[in-house]
Amino acid sequence: MTKRNAVVGQSGGPTAVINQSLVGVIEEARKSAHIGDILGARHGVRGIVKNDFIRLNDVPDELLERIAMTPAAALGSTRDKPDQEYCRRIFESFQKNNVGYFFYIGGNDSADTARIVNELARQAGYELRVFHIPKTIDNDLRVHDHCPGYGSAARYVACAIMGDNLDNRSLPGIKVDVIMGRNAGWLTAASVLGRKYEGDGPHLVYVPESPVTPDRLLADVDAVYRKYGRCLIAASEGMCTPKKVMDKRGERYQLWAELAAEDMAARLKPGEDKNLDLEPDDHGNRQLSGSGMLGDFIAGLIKRELGPKQPLDDKGKPRKLRVRADTFGYPQRSFVGCMSKVDAKEARLVGQMAVRYSADNVDGSVAMRRLPGKRYRIETFLTPLETVARDTRDLPAEWIVNGNDISQAFIDYARPLVGPLPEIGSFDELKQA
Amino acid sequence: MTKRNAVVGQSGGPTAVINQSLVGVIEEARKSAHIGDILGARHGVRGIVKNDFIRLNDVPDELLERIAMTPAAALGSTRDKPDQEYCRRIFESFQKNNVGYFFYIGGNDSADTARIVNELARQAGYELRVFHIPKTIDNDLRVHDHCPGYGSAARYVACAIMGDNLDNRSLPGIKVDVIMGRNAGWLTAASVLGRKYEGDGPHLVYVPESPVTPDRLLADVDAVYRKYGRCLIAASEGMCTPKKVMDKRGERYQLWAELAAEDMAARLKPGEDKNLDLEPDDHGNRQLSGSGMLGDFIAGLIKRELGPKQPLDDKGKPRKLRVRADTFGYPQRSFVGCMSKVDAKEARLVGQMAVRYSADNVDGSVAMRRLPGKRYRIETFLTPLETVARDTRDLPAEWIVNGNDISQAFIDYARPLVGPLPEIGSFDELKQA
Repeated sequence: MTKRNAVVGQSGGPTAVINQSLVGVIEEARKSAHIGDILGARHGVRGIVKNDFIRLNDVPDELLERIAMTPAAALGSTRDKPDQEYCRRIFESFQKNNVGYFFYIGGNDSADTARIVNELARQAGYELRVFHIPKTIDNDLRVHDHCPGYGSAARYVACAIMGDNLDNRSLPGIKVDVIMGRNAGWLTAASVLGRKYEGDGPHLVYVPESPVTPDRLLADVDAVYRKYGRCLIAASEGMCTPKKVMDKRGERYQLWAELAAEDMAARLKPGEDKNLDLEPDDHGNRQLSGSGMLGDFIAGLIKRELGPKQPLDDKGKPRKLRVRADTFGYPQRSFVGCMSKVDAKEARLVGQMAVRYSADNVDGSVAMRRLPGKRYRIETFLTPLETVARDTRDLPAEWIVNGNDISQAFIDYARPLVGPLPEIGSFDELKQA
Repeated sequence: MTKRNAVVGQSGGPTAVINQSLVGVIEEARKSAHIGDILGARHGVRGIVKNDFIRLNDVPDELLERIAMTPAAALGSTRDKPDQEYCRRIFESFQKNNVGYFFYIGGNDSADTARIVNELARQAGYELRVFHIPKTIDNDLRVHDHCPGYGSAARYVACAIMGDNLDNRSLPGIKVDVIMGRNAGWLTAASVLGRKYEGDGPHLVYVPESPVTPDRLLADVDAVYRKYGRCLIAASEGMCTPKKVMDKRGERYQLWAELAAEDMAARLKPGEDKNLDLEPDDHGNRQLSGSGMLGDFIAGLIKRELGPKQPLDDKGKPRKLRVRADTFGYPQRSFVGCMSKVDAKEARLVGQMAVRYSADNVDGSVAMRRLPGKRYRIETFLTPLETVARDTRDLPAEWIVNGNDISQAFIDYARPLVGPLPEIGSFDELKQA
C-alpha cells in the first residue's frame, strides 16, 4: 500500500480532553500501514490554508502523554467557519501536500467543514478520507450518545455547584450561577449531579429548552426562599423566555441575555449603549460567555422585585435579601486538573478509531453508542458527516421536570460520563441516623 | 482536673479546609483531660447567643473524616460582627453552659470577637480560655506566615489561570480574570504559579497594593498585545487607582470597582442607578464578589479605547479585538475537589494545637512560622489576639514587580502551600529541544 499523508486539526472552543483525541490520532497513525507524514495544522483550517503544519511523527511519547493531559487545543484552535471558497483552499493545500486523510476534531461546525471538503474532493475525483472527531462541552451533536469534552466540563460544573451549595448552606442567601451552553441545556443539567442531602441545591435549573418568563422565575425563587431560607439557581447562558422572535435563521425564543441587554439599554442615556456590546455580532450571535451581564441582570431582578416583599426586621425595614451571581466562565472548559477519567479515555478512543476506520474506503463522524446491560459500556461507529453537521441536539423534553428541574433519567445518563464525585459529609447525617 | 465545656464555631466566608480545623479541634478535645462537652455553635456567634449547639463528642470518625474533606463551614457560618453588647450575650451563653474554652475559626474579624469576649471574661473574673483558629483565603492575617484556606484557594486560582492561559493560547484574544481579595493581593498573586513556557500568562497582574491608572493599564495591555497577539490579565477585585478618597475608616485609594460604578452611573438615565447596587452597604463596603461588574468594566474599557487603534483588515476596518472577562467568584473558596494537601494538613494541625494550648493558662491566635532550612517545614505558636484582630497584612511591596507582575520570591513563598500543580505539555517543547 502506498502511504499518503494525514492532516489533523482542532477547532472551536477548548475542552479538557481535546488533546486526548489528538494524541489518539497520532499514536494510531504512527502504527498504521497507510499513513505517512502526520501533519498537525496550527489553528485548524487557518493553518491548512497557510501551510502552517507541525510534523507529529516523531514527538516523544513522554511529551505526547503530557499533552494528552493538557486542556485546550495543543495545535491551536480557530473560530473560522469556512465557506465554499475557503474549503476550496483547504482542498488545494491537501493536494499540494499529498494528503489522503483529514482528521478534524471539533463540534458541529467542524463536521460541516469536513463535509464540504469531502464533497469537493469527491467532485474532483481526488481520493480523500475525511473524519470528524467529536469535541464539545455542549454535548449537543446529533446521533452521538454523548461527546468527548462533555464529561469533564460536566464534572467541573457538578463540583462547582456542590461547593456553591455548601457555601450557600453555610451563609444562606440567593445565588445565581450562569453555566455555558448556547443552544442546549446539557451542561446546566449537570448542576444536579452533586445533590446529596435533603434541601441541597441547585433548587432551580433553567435550560434553553424550557422557556421561562421573569414572573415565573420570580415566583419559583420566592417559593424556594420561603421554604429553605436560601436558593441556588443554575441558569444556562442560553436560557429563553417564551416570546418568539425572528432572526436570520428563522423563528426562535428570545434569550434572557437579550432581555438583559434590552433592560440595560432602557436604563442608559441615549447613545450610551454602543459602548456596552449590547448588539449581536456579525453572525447574529449575541456574546454570551465572557461577560457577567446575564447573571447580574437576574440577580438585580430578584433583588428589585423580591427585596421589598421580605418580612420586616426589628427596625421595621424589609429584611435584607442577599443576592449574588457568578458566571462560571472559561474554567468550565479549561480548568487544569478536573478531568473525567471516562471522558479522557473515550476522547483518546475516538481519535484512535478515526485512524482505524480510515484504512477502509469510508468517511464520517466517529460516534459512540451505549451497549445494553447494567454496566456502562460504549462502542464507536461511523455516522455520515451530514447527520452531525449544522443542527444541534436538545436535552430531551422528558428530562426537564416542571420547567425548573432535571430528572433522575438524566442523572443515570450523565453519571458514568462524569465519574464519581468527591465524597463529602454533613452533620445532617446525625439527624438521619 | 474538673472538666469544663468547649464551644467551637466557624465564621466568615468559606474555605476548602475550614472543616479540617473543626475536626482537628474535635479529635483533640475528645482526647483531652480538661474538656467535657464539645459544643458546635450553629452559624458562629449567632448560634452561641441563640443557644443553638450540636454536641460533637460522639460524631463517628468516618463522618468526621468526610466532613474534614468538605468545603464551607459544616457548622454554618455568619457575617455578624459582634459589638460589645453582642459579645456580652455571647459571654452570658458561655456562663450558662459552663463553657471554659472558646475556639473560634475565622479571619481577623473573628479574632477581634474572640478578643472582646476574652476581655469581658477577664473583667468578670470568669475563667475562659479563648483561641482564634486562622482561616482565610485572603491570607491577610498579620503575624501569621500564611493562613489555612489560602493554599487551596491559591491552588484553584493557579489551576484556573493555567487553563485560561492554555485557552487563550489556543484562541488568542484579550482576557480579564477577576480574582478575590478585597484588601490584599495574595490570592491574585497566585495566578503566576502555573506559568511554564515563554510567553505564558498572566501577562499582567494587578493587586490592591499597587494602584494603577486606567491609562497605565491600557498602555500595559497594548504593549503585551502587540508583543504576543494576546493578553491574559489577573485583576484583584480590590485593585485601586492612585486617587486618594476618604471614607469612615480614613484615607484610602479609590477602588476600580468604584470607577466601574461611577462609569455606569454616568451612563444611566437619572434615577436608574438605584436598581443596580452601585452604592456601598451599611458597613461602607462596596459589593465586590458575586457580580461581574468590575470585569465587564475593564473589558469594556479595553475594547473601547484599544479597539479603534487596531491595524486595518482587508476591508479597511480595524481588526476585531476579542476581549472577554470572567469573574472567578465563589468557586475560588468552595470548589469541591481542589484542596492543597499541605493546606488541609496545616488546617487540621492548627485546630489540634489550639486544644493542646488550651491545657495551659494562655489565650491567643494559633499561628504558623517557617523553620529554617531548604525543605518546607512549619511550627505553630500562639500570638496575642490583638496582634491579629482588625488590621490586615499586605503583600510585601518588594514582591510586586513594575506594578504589574509578581516576583520569584512570592513563588518560592507560595509554592509549598499550593503543592505541585498538574503536569502539562506543549509542542513548544519541540522547538527548545
